[in-house]
Amino acid sequence: MSSYPPLRLRRHEDRRLRAGHVWIYSNEVDTAQTPFAQLEPGSVVQVEDSQGHALGLAHLSPHSLLCARLLTRDVREAIDIGFYRGRLAAALRLRERLLDSPYYRLVHGEGDGLPGLIIDRHGDFLVLQIGSQGMERDLSQIVAALQAEIPQQGILLKATGVARKMEGLPERVEVLAGEVPATIEIEENGCRFTIDPYAGQKTGWFYDHRANRRLLQRFAAGRRVLDLFSYSGAFALPLAKAGASEVLAIDASASALALLQRNVAANSLGQIRAQQGDALESLRLLRDQGESFDLIVLDPPALIKSRKDMKEGVQAYRRLNDLALRLLRPGGLLFTASCSFHMSREMLLREIGHAAVRSPSVILAEGGQDLDHPVPPAVPESRYLKGFLLQRPDPQTETDA
Amino acid sequence: MSSYPPLRLRRHEDRRLRAGHVWIYSNEVDTAQTPFAQLEPGSVVQVEDSQGHALGLAHLSPHSLLCARLLTRDVREAIDIGFYRGRLAAALRLRERLLDSPYYRLVHGEGDGLPGLIIDRHGDFLVLQIGSQGMERDLSQIVAALQAEIPQQGILLKATGVARKMEGLPERVEVLAGEVPATIEIEENGCRFTIDPYAGQKTGWFYDHRANRRLLQRFAAGRRVLDLFSYSGAFALPLAKAGASEVLAIDASASALALLQRNVAANSLGQIRAQQGDALESLRLLRDQGESFDLIVLDPPALIKSRKDMKEGVQAYRRLNDLALRLLRPGGLLFTASCSFHMSREMLLREIGHAAVRSPSVILAEGGQDLDHPVPPAVPESRYLKGFLLQRPDPQTETDA
Repeated sequence: MSSYPPLRLRRHEDRRLRAGHVWIYSNEVDTAQTPFAQLEPGSVVQVEDSQGHALGLAHLSPHSLLCARLLTRDVREAIDIGFYRGRLAAALRLRERLLDSPYYRLVHGEGDGLPGLIIDRHGDFLVLQIGSQGMERDLSQIVAALQAEIPQQGILLKATGVARKMEGLPERVEVLAGEVPATIEIEENGCRFTIDPYAGQKTGWFYDHRANRRLLQRFAAGRRVLDLFSYSGAFALPLAKAGASEVLAIDASASALALLQRNVAANSLGQIRAQQGDALESLRLLRDQGESFDLIVLDPPALIKSRKDMKEGVQAYRRLNDLALRLLRPGGLLFTASCSFHMSREMLLREIGHAAVRSPSVILAEGGQDLDHPVPPAVPESRYLKGFLLQRPDPQTETDA
Repeated sequence: MSSYPPLRLRRHEDRRLRAGHVWIYSNEVDTAQTPFAQLEPGSVVQVEDSQGHALGLAHLSPHSLLCARLLTRDVREAIDIGFYRGRLAAALRLRERLLDSPYYRLVHGEGDGLPGLIIDRHGDFLVLQIGSQGMERDLSQIVAALQAEIPQQGILLKATGVARKMEGLPERVEVLAGEVPATIEIEENGCRFTIDPYAGQKTGWFYDHRANRRLLQRFAAGRRVLDLFSYSGAFALPLAKAGASEVLAIDASASALALLQRNVAANSLGQIRAQQGDALESLRLLRDQGESFDLIVLDPPALIKSRKDMKEGVQAYRRLNDLALRLLRPGGLLFTASCSFHMSREMLLREIGHAAVRSPSVILAEGGQDLDHPVPPAVPESRYLKGFLLQRPDPQTETDA
């Protein structure tokens, strides 16, 4: 048994953990048996069922609804630099087996046995996101473990975003080791991109759609493409590279489009046109102008950040998908995605279904997050990215019978 | 308005149709307003809501629980050879845009606006499966439409399986046009296969896993592979072709393995070993012998054919997945699938989750049916194939800190 203080669960509240999940909610804890007041935020506890049987070791967030995250089911382990080195080495091996170049998500929280920790590897540079008090507390051990296990020239902490707020953690952006330049070059799907790890969204790049972008490349040749929420061009460039005749990339952010323009120039892809604007307004304008496209990419940022945004967010997904489907030419393709945790796969399907009543279309493929974003089967929350490839059928032409 | 007799729905029973679905159940029909007794099985009816507003035209199966299937929402259409030619031409265009060679599912029921009809195209030969009285009744028009729209040398009707029984249709296998040889050659993922359209399962080939087989090819080089329910080698051969060091293919059917052996010889892939046996027993034996694999394919036939098989079927999935995960080497991959309509994606995930508690593993990717099996967004029943790629992580090795 471990020397970590106990966190005792109430009766039957061990079921989800025994079925493979790793989260513990505060209402599941037997507070009479758990010395909460004496426990430091971010410290390690030994989780026990109501009978006192040990279930594993967890990071504690005593003031959060999600109050503990299981790190290991082996209570003989110590949560120290050796623990982090082991997890990081396994995470590195997984990526090196599956991917060809060092541009990927290196640690995907629960999927790599490190709930609360996200690390993207942009070649020689690592960018961390921390979403739990436990990982915040163990940061120096994590940095030391990274230095021991992962070849790198610099480590950047990008501690921003909604998860931090829920944990009561302050936002900060800070170089933790070595040097991290203002921009970094990465490669994906045959293109080179300059990214901005400091001011860009999240770690500066979204590796999750890598395989979806590659899938769409198969259908790009000679097609007129509309890329909504284009960000720095992660869809637009590989589609142009694969032979799209024209790509209209729309984003609300001037700084994103500046990066996109820079990437377009560096890859000599003249057929991409960047346009600043709101996606919904742009779709309406394109509809009013009678424009149409062979391939549309609709990959919005999380439109539902919390439960209170639900209604408005769902409506936004509905309007965007409805308008996008209506801009498709016969035989045209729409790739539509949602990374909102609160927008479940079934909810997205329902909105697509509604839009497809007005604009008949069929689902050809489903595309979630790529291989470097592993998901424990019992932790559906880790599978946050949903994507569907739709086609508008060719109309039934009159045949000469 | 059409001249087809009306099928009147009860109040509120138009909702699912208006949301995009195409099925009507017998308990949704206003039988007082619908002249059921005068309607012929398989005839076309005009579906109306409780107010008499037309919703579309449907094929009638008056004695089935699923008593009508919507063919079109445009009641001015006639369900004649022109209708079938239009649908088939659109289906052909979709495949020709997306796929490189003429080996695919040409018509996927609801996904191609032809509920009750399945057609696989094996190059010059078409194999039909019919699962509704309406398609059975319109068979000669369908054959004439195929002859007009799809280049082919022969059309085989393979009217077998559980869907026929539910519709009260007799089983039969019959050449409907031209000539269809005893065996046909097809191509997939760089291999050539001989298939048996007459005695083989379904149409003789399962195109639905094409993309999943291609995905696994990326991870096959140098790996030791176990292919359970190998059938005629649709996974085994491309994995060997992609450089697997050894492939053990297991199937209960001697005739399937005979075809597999023939395919192995034709593709000169010496590293495949075929073994006749029950999958579960074989897994137990391999476990007892201490065998282990880098890559396991677990793609059983539908283990749950109807609701009454539910409990036993779910248990079979659980046992198979549990044993398969236990035979994985560290870092090894399991591709596990279910084509049972009654085994939902969530149910399969639950069984995988259970197995993963004993044998820790993560989901790397999800793989459903390939592009030539389109699904209307509001008809989840068309999305029958579920597949997950799992990895057993490398154990945490002791690091020299």
